[in-house]
Amino acid sequence: MSDSGTKNLQVTLKSRPQGWVRESDFALVESPLPAIADGEVLLKTLYLSLDPYMRGRMDDVKSYAASVNLGDVMVGGAVSEVTDSRHPKFKAGDVVVSPAGWQRYSKANGDHLMRVPAGLPPSVFLGPAGMPGVTAWMGLFDIGQPKEGETVVVSAASGAVGSVVGQLAKEKGCRAVGIAGGPEKCAYVVDTLGFDACIDYKRDGWMQELKNATPDGVDVGFENVGGEVLDNVLRRTNPKARIALCGLIAGYNATEPMPLHNVRALLVNRIRLQGFIVSDDLSRWPEIIRELAGRIASGKLKYRETIANGLESAPKAFIGLLKGENFGKQLVKVS
Amino acid sequence: MSDSGTKNLQVTLKSRPQGWVRESDFALVESPLPAIADGEVLLKTLYLSLDPYMRGRMDDVKSYAASVNLGDVMVGGAVSEVTDSRHPKFKAGDVVVSPAGWQRYSKANGDHLMRVPAGLPPSVFLGPAGMPGVTAWMGLFDIGQPKEGETVVVSAASGAVGSVVGQLAKEKGCRAVGIAGGPEKCAYVVDTLGFDACIDYKRDGWMQELKNATPDGVDVGFENVGGEVLDNVLRRTNPKARIALCGLIAGYNATEPMPLHNVRALLVNRIRLQGFIVSDDLSRWPEIIRELAGRIASGKLKYRETIANGLESAPKAFIGLLKGENFGKQLVKVS
Repeated sequence: MSDSGTKNLQVTLKSRPQGWVRESDFALVESPLPAIADGEVLLKTLYLSLDPYMRGRMDDVKSYAASVNLGDVMVGGAVSEVTDSRHPKFKAGDVVVSPAGWQRYSKANGDHLMRVPAGLPPSVFLGPAGMPGVTAWMGLFDIGQPKEGETVVVSAASGAVGSVVGQLAKEKGCRAVGIAGGPEKCAYVVDTLGFDACIDYKRDGWMQELKNATPDGVDVGFENVGGEVLDNVLRRTNPKARIALCGLIAGYNATEPMPLHNVRALLVNRIRLQGFIVSDDLSRWPEIIRELAGRIASGKLKYRETIANGLESAPKAFIGLLKGENFGKQLVKVS
Repeated sequence: MSDSGTKNLQVTLKSRPQGWVRESDFALVESPLPAIADGEVLLKTLYLSLDPYMRGRMDDVKSYAASVNLGDVMVGGAVSEVTDSRHPKFKAGDVVVSPAGWQRYSKANGDHLMRVPAGLPPSVFLGPAGMPGVTAWMGLFDIGQPKEGETVVVSAASGAVGSVVGQLAKEKGCRAVGIAGGPEKCAYVVDTLGFDACIDYKRDGWMQELKNATPDGVDVGFENVGGEVLDNVLRRTNPKARIALCGLIAGYNATEPMPLHNVRALLVNRIRLQGFIVSDDLSRWPEIIRELAGRIASGKLKYRETIANGLESAPKAFIGLLKGENFGKQLVKVS
């Protein structure tokens, strides 16, 4: 075993956030390496994925997934290298996707690990060919059901999920309109990702710009933000529009929930507003990941990463993600 | 022609309401009887239907249906008697359902009229076997998709739509829980309509009563009210719950829209919240009306009517409907 004598490093939840998450809500702790049993592998984290859903796990409220207990390691997906294996399918040096959490070493049952295929940078399996990409695919196609010629509006358009949504919508023959924070992100969304337009929600009067960018109204919304953004998208909806509710990042750090004011549009325009959770249908992940990885390999699906260095930087990078300071998929390079 | 020399009496829209509708927003005007052309019939209104959707038509905003212009007759469905016919299928004395509007006489193209079948009081075709009943059927079955053993919660439960929703849910083997205003309505909903429970939203702390009445959570919501009522129903939703958004009567007279606070539940519980308009699928009305009329004839589907007397009383009765002062289906006996 190559790591004998090595210590594990973990980020644990120290306190539940009141409003905005603070770095002091996390603790950095050393611990012994986990011991592995038959069927398990020892994993060294290469890249940790940071995602908005993690904010919900820090609260002690009923949700679709259990809260992180105080003192426990923060949850999270990772790309990891096998350093020791007691599973017949894996050997040291293999690279896998695993729910490693915010830590340098983890162990896992080998039966539930996805081996990272060769030919692509492994980090894409945490981004456009990972959970965010599958989220984009399911929300857009299962709930949004876009038809050629329709208009699709995506918030957090430069992010890990939004960037895939818009590119898939373009491939489908739709008009893709993004909403993002700041001119740099908007330029990237249009110039690199190929959206038809992108609205900077930090500008005053952006509702008028959204109106101009959606001359035929909105048929499909993909909502990652909530609050004013969702209300403004609803103002542009056509009859029978579909809105995939993927995230409400605008309210994740509010002590009071962000209300939705334009409920009337849902009624008048007979809109279907539907929340979804990508982990509800795990059986479809492999097929969707193959589809997405193929598009990345051919250069058709573009992506961008923001990489923080070292596990110690994870809390700060996570807070930045919640504030929209990242650009594209937020990762932490751990080893 | 039996009505020569008779004048028509109409209720027109005099001014657009600011907040609550006032009687002075309407005008009562006399006018000549309409002349009928080939293919048309002259109709004398027996019962005029009053429905919450009419409030929307009084505003000058984009909606699924055109606003009533100032000075025009208020729109509305009616059961009418044919007094003169230039259509081969109709003769004087026939009773039909028609979009007559708030007036004593109207004309209509005979091709688009539904003849009221014999054997039931004609007014039921404005209530449980009319538009409200079809609304209940479509919202419950198409959007709610209740399964045996699930819990269905209906607001405005003693009303024309809600009363049918709950009875159909019981027939389907569901637990039916109503929300209504006041002890008298709640007693009727449980004792006469056969709901399992009914919560009086006018009582302080009714959220706790709703909780007690839905021990297994809520799988299907049928929402006629909005505002606090919808927020509280959302607090009880199970994962994958479906909510048919039929009306938002709580906000119809507010100058500011009633916000929805519990958007997070939609996401966390992967809820489908879907607005619908019963007139979107007219082709299915005849079949659904037959289903409902059969249940009324057999005594299986109970209903209750509040009947105002004389066309002059329509504005006051309509305002009462918006305030929840009616009990069951609100009608106006016109002739």
